[in-house]
Amino acid sequence: MGLVGEKIALDAMGGDHAPEAIVAGAVKACEELGVSVQLVGSRESIQNCLDTHGSHPNIEIIDAPDIIDMHEDPVKGLRRKPKASISVTMKQVRKGLADAAVSAGHSGAAMAAGLLRLGRIPGIDRPAIAAIFPTVAEGKPVLLLDVGANVDCRPKFIEQFAVMGSVYSNLVLGTPNPTVGLVNIGEEESKGNDLAIKTYPFLEANPNVNFAGNAEGRDILSGDFDVVVCDGFVGNVVLKFAEAVGSVVIQLLKEELPRGKRGKVGSLILKSNLKRLKKRIDHAEHGGGLLLGVNGVCVIGHGSSDAASVCNAIRTARDAVRSKMLEQLKEKCNSTVQESDPDAGGQNESATSQTVTQEPVTTES
Amino acid sequence: MGLVGEKIALDAMGGDHAPEAIVAGAVKACEELGVSVQLVGSRESIQNCLDTHGSHPNIEIIDAPDIIDMHEDPVKGLRRKPKASISVTMKQVRKGLADAAVSAGHSGAAMAAGLLRLGRIPGIDRPAIAAIFPTVAEGKPVLLLDVGANVDCRPKFIEQFAVMGSVYSNLVLGTPNPTVGLVNIGEEESKGNDLAIKTYPFLEANPNVNFAGNAEGRDILSGDFDVVVCDGFVGNVVLKFAEAVGSVVIQLLKEELPRGKRGKVGSLILKSNLKRLKKRIDHAEHGGGLLLGVNGVCVIGHGSSDAASVCNAIRTARDAVRSKMLEQLKEKCNSTVQESDPDAGGQNESATSQTVTQEPVTTES
Repeated sequence: MGLVGEKIALDAMGGDHAPEAIVAGAVKACEELGVSVQLVGSRESIQNCLDTHGSHPNIEIIDAPDIIDMHEDPVKGLRRKPKASISVTMKQVRKGLADAAVSAGHSGAAMAAGLLRLGRIPGIDRPAIAAIFPTVAEGKPVLLLDVGANVDCRPKFIEQFAVMGSVYSNLVLGTPNPTVGLVNIGEEESKGNDLAIKTYPFLEANPNVNFAGNAEGRDILSGDFDVVVCDGFVGNVVLKFAEAVGSVVIQLLKEELPRGKRGKVGSLILKSNLKRLKKRIDHAEHGGGLLLGVNGVCVIGHGSSDAASVCNAIRTARDAVRSKMLEQLKEKCNSTVQESDPDAGGQNESATSQTVTQEPVTTES
Repeated sequence: MGLVGEKIALDAMGGDHAPEAIVAGAVKACEELGVSVQLVGSRESIQNCLDTHGSHPNIEIIDAPDIIDMHEDPVKGLRRKPKASISVTMKQVRKGLADAAVSAGHSGAAMAAGLLRLGRIPGIDRPAIAAIFPTVAEGKPVLLLDVGANVDCRPKFIEQFAVMGSVYSNLVLGTPNPTVGLVNIGEEESKGNDLAIKTYPFLEANPNVNFAGNAEGRDILSGDFDVVVCDGFVGNVVLKFAEAVGSVVIQLLKEELPRGKRGKVGSLILKSNLKRLKKRIDHAEHGGGLLLGVNGVCVIGHGSSDAASVCNAIRTARDAVRSKMLEQLKEKCNSTVQESDPDAGGQNESATSQTVTQEPVTTES
């Protein structure tokens, strides 16, 4: 086949603009990132896109005709449709045929497929989705997790998020000895809700976590922390709020700057600077979250991904593969003791996690 | 005394820049808002500020020499220091000598003092702090509550927040039949953490709540909802995150816009438009949160308040008094059944709420 570089399995059918935007993103990634991409989905649809818009020698098609619908229960859908594109994408990694999996589809389905097909790293109770945010300090991003995989958490889960986030920040983002903050409503150890107060001593005690104390909402983007941890409910609200604020600001700029004659002239002069600003604000540039804790490199992109975002998600996956993050994660997480309770979390679990983890982790091919 | 307009009791000793900024804000408010202000605190310090920077005929001083320290336990501090400025401020309202109380001091102490000195409205288990945010839709703000009074909540508490927020939005912000959203991680009723899933049917069933479904992080500033409710942990993280994002954007503007020759020229031309933009983004303009659910009008300002923010907090208080919001709150909340369990919330309560509510609500003068 002549495939070169990191091999990325890409769910071609997932996302609001699939398969066109996904296929275009794959071609862009092959051109720019030195990777090979396996486009997983309906062979006919993918071939059509490639024929219309051009292909690349490093592109391969893996036929997987089924799709899991946005409104379908993810776990049931995966069980009923073994040929679903998201499922086959994960299996490529499981079988060692690809180095990483990328999907911009239904994030619940992607997470469930990751868990079911790849399994968990020993020492991890709950995989988490990690998102990278720009901070006030240029070139010093912050990693926030969990942004939506686990809506109700135990302190031990959040401790595990901290270990995983630290490894990622260190190896992939290149941060030496990353500092970790716990999302909270005050700086003092005694502050917070029940979960935060109980999580604090776990983070303090873990030798693999460089714990720097509580991070208030205002500290998340301050650059004072390299990794910030919280449950997936809080993290998801912050993630989506941040994305919206970006659009709000861009809209405000469009409304306020061109007001009056001076405004129109000034805005015209500033056009290229405004464009660069938009790029710094726009979260879509940053290309998807990592599903950390599954036994494989797995990136979940935005549903609304365009070709550029897909390419960025592939870059995120490639960088994780190159850094050998997974090996280090396995080593560090093994020393964090997993909860012995097999029903860890019990009633407090999110519906998705609960259903998925009650299922034996299948390794069928 | 010749005092005119709404009578505002203002804690002159609370806030990072007290008493200077507070006193200056009081003078500004008397000049601009048609109110009278009772400055509560050390008579000598207040008089010094007035002598140096000028006074106003509608200003009165109420001597209260004690201060509750930022690092003091609020409830213990209030008990040990009956002459603390925050405590005397609330008592002015309790005794009917003032129409509203305003403080920019320690928000935990202000909340505890409000609860202890004013008591709760019948039908309300937990008072909440409500904050107003600008949205994408100009002139259509959204009210978010709770932003920090109750870190662990029961569904019933959040239902009560929804009723209180609706009354405020209707009477003070002038929204006809305000729509209410529940902060969550997805639109479907089945989505969310345990608390959100259990709260949904309460909001659906309450005849005083125009429930419009779940509000994701991205929907909070969309203008689609007039009131958005959540527990005080999530609300506080969002509030502080939003404040920080404002500063981040303003910093990005300063960094990116003047780059290069064209940038410098364009920025200069746009100076006044940029100023207006900063004003729309800057949350400090909006002047403090309302403590809803206590038996009196009570505004808690930012600790970092300058004179303009203090004046805005006084405006918020004045508008609430003028709208006769409190009377309507009492009427609507009485029809919402309070939890019969006197230890409502039990172990799940925040330390502050728990300690305060175990205390019999004193009405001493």
